[in-house]
Amino acid sequence: MKTGLDFLLAAKRCEIDGLQRLAFTATLVDVSARLVHQLQRERGLTNLYLGSMGQRFAEARAAQIGASRQVEAEWRAQFGRVDTGTAQAGHGARLFSRIAYVLQGLDGLDALRGQLDAQAWDTDRATEAYARLVAALLAVVFEAADSATDPEVSRRLVALFNFIQGKEFAGQERAVGAALFARGQSDSARQQRLLHLIESQERCLELFDSVAPPTARALWTAPHSSAPLAELERLRRVLYTAPHGAALRPELSQAWFDVCSARMDAMKLVEDRLTADLRALCGEKIAQAQAELASFGALSAQAAPDPLVFYLAPADPNGPAAPGATQGFALPLDRSVLELVHDQARRLQAMGDELEAVRASLNERRLIERAKGLLMAHRQLSEAEAHKTLRQMAMNQNRRLVDVAEALLSMAEVLPPR
Amino acid sequence: MKTGLDFLLAAKRCEIDGLQRLAFTATLVDVSARLVHQLQRERGLTNLYLGSMGQRFAEARAAQIGASRQVEAEWRAQFGRVDTGTAQAGHGARLFSRIAYVLQGLDGLDALRGQLDAQAWDTDRATEAYARLVAALLAVVFEAADSATDPEVSRRLVALFNFIQGKEFAGQERAVGAALFARGQSDSARQQRLLHLIESQERCLELFDSVAPPTARALWTAPHSSAPLAELERLRRVLYTAPHGAALRPELSQAWFDVCSARMDAMKLVEDRLTADLRALCGEKIAQAQAELASFGALSAQAAPDPLVFYLAPADPNGPAAPGATQGFALPLDRSVLELVHDQARRLQAMGDELEAVRASLNERRLIERAKGLLMAHRQLSEAEAHKTLRQMAMNQNRRLVDVAEALLSMAEVLPPR
Repeated sequence: MKTGLDFLLAAKRCEIDGLQRLAFTATLVDVSARLVHQLQRERGLTNLYLGSMGQRFAEARAAQIGASRQVEAEWRAQFGRVDTGTAQAGHGARLFSRIAYVLQGLDGLDALRGQLDAQAWDTDRATEAYARLVAALLAVVFEAADSATDPEVSRRLVALFNFIQGKEFAGQERAVGAALFARGQSDSARQQRLLHLIESQERCLELFDSVAPPTARALWTAPHSSAPLAELERLRRVLYTAPHGAALRPELSQAWFDVCSARMDAMKLVEDRLTADLRALCGEKIAQAQAELASFGALSAQAAPDPLVFYLAPADPNGPAAPGATQGFALPLDRSVLELVHDQARRLQAMGDELEAVRASLNERRLIERAKGLLMAHRQLSEAEAHKTLRQMAMNQNRRLVDVAEALLSMAEVLPPR
Repeated sequence: MKTGLDFLLAAKRCEIDGLQRLAFTATLVDVSARLVHQLQRERGLTNLYLGSMGQRFAEARAAQIGASRQVEAEWRAQFGRVDTGTAQAGHGARLFSRIAYVLQGLDGLDALRGQLDAQAWDTDRATEAYARLVAALLAVVFEAADSATDPEVSRRLVALFNFIQGKEFAGQERAVGAALFARGQSDSARQQRLLHLIESQERCLELFDSVAPPTARALWTAPHSSAPLAELERLRRVLYTAPHGAALRPELSQAWFDVCSARMDAMKLVEDRLTADLRALCGEKIAQAQAELASFGALSAQAAPDPLVFYLAPADPNGPAAPGATQGFALPLDRSVLELVHDQARRLQAMGDELEAVRASLNERRLIERAKGLLMAHRQLSEAEAHKTLRQMAMNQNRRLVDVAEALLSMAEVLPPR
């Protein structure tokens, strides 16, 4: 027969198990972010290569493909360690499904490179192909953030997700700009696309800023991080102010690529800091939870308290948590199992509430993305146009973007199938 | 090295695992509902016994205690089967914590009965003590509903939770009414309490009605279920219309108890139907998911498709789900792994959205309960008064109850500690 203490201990072990899973997830997120970084470089160099009609950048591109392959092997090895035997419920299914999708993309990567070697695809198609694979990798990071069971870890994952997503928009900007310079001719459609990418970038970085821990934010706003920005803004100006069809100096393509890359490398450092901090945080939390578990274990030797205490105690476990309750960890000397059960219930409740709040921001993002996807599919819009349409609707109706997205999605069923 | 198909299969296994866990949870919810039913009867008979100053109902009460003990043993046996060794993350911790709390109550139950045998506690205290234990059992059902990974199952659990909660308000009404009749004197405070219990009952049954499957709703609205209601309403009228201090006929206590009990027994039949349907639904879903898994397994023998298909396919897995996507299950003959990955991602997304919507209703309930708890603690209000205050605030501010609750909870930190 199991006792209350057995379940108290089991609840704590569940927490520890969740944290250990998160610590492993953090390593998966880390290697995914690194693979994204390599693919972004490969995309940029491929666009330079394609833009120069295969005349330049072949060597740099080949070297980069080697580097990408190395991190891809690492990614496959890390994800090969994922325990697909013992099933996890719910989010596990979603995460696995995202991983399966990434693997489809990685399996086709060499075939894609073959097409690009032969210059069979243009820069737009190349950019879109790499963006698709990067988006698949980002979806893995998104699910990791969404499935985290600890609110503090979840918040860090949300910060990281937004930062990587912002960096991806910066990467697409690099690719589109590189293609423009390399072609040597301005183009108003691509100028529009660049504006959209810059705006999306800034939106992600604002979200990052609102949830990131101070250390990572400080690193991102430090002078060496923002230094490339002045030169980047100068070249951005060159790109935007050129009228449609005007000549662009192809020799600027290298400068553009370099300054964009310097900025993205600075972003990579912030990412590295975020993932390292995340792993450290998981480690601390596991150690703390294990210390709590050990101290609970000592309780079993204690004499049973007054059996009536359950019916006499004034507190109720559904009541509001005491301030700092999520911090937890008071040594349970001379405390009854009932008090510990109350404390644990309060703390879990407070954690659940906090988690709910963090996940709400992810859910908003998901709704907006899906509403955009719906507009793109049904009205044949580009992503930039879909985003603009959604924003315009929100302004006209004086509603939040997420509310407009939700209203749009609720109409999805009555729209004709695409 | 793991392939996309490996992860596709793993995602499906996760779903099956989640469903199997739910099927087991359904049996736990079933035995909890049955224990609640016995404790409710025990509370009612104890109140008759106490109200008659120990002159009557001693025998019926003793027989009921025997019946309660039998179901308690069953409850302990079923929960003893819960695997506390292999930890589940997140919700598992919360569920275990709730179970630990129930066990504290069950361990003190015999001590409580001793107090009541000796008539050391009055009917109010007795009612409150049993209500506390029933609330602890209901919290287990609540967590089960909250942790369900399948939206359809989750919706049934929400229906069941609301129904059991409604029945508990009916049970408290029986206990308070029985005590009033047995004392033989009307009392305005208890009349207020009865009005609150009836209102709360109706609110829960409305929520049940809005989410329950048609079979259970039909059973609940069938003539034999609503038959006791006319006699109940007549006795309710006797109780409410008596001025404070007026005499009540003690011999009506048995009639009151019988008619309330007949209604609660009819409610128990609905509960039994709900839990039986729930188990059947889990079984069907498991069988269906296993058939899908088997059909996926056959894919591994197929030749690999064009490796470029990932980059050429128009669909995106984040896109809106096709109508009926949550139903799933199309035989994957001549379909590629990529298509299956897309379908799975869409289906899981649609399920996640649906689940989010079901859980939102639970979350609202949780917020309102916690706001009420806050008011009770800080303003020394009874539950009925706290509920009335909250509702009055909502009406004055022309806002939803849940919004007022949320605003109140957000102020909790600035309130002085109790």
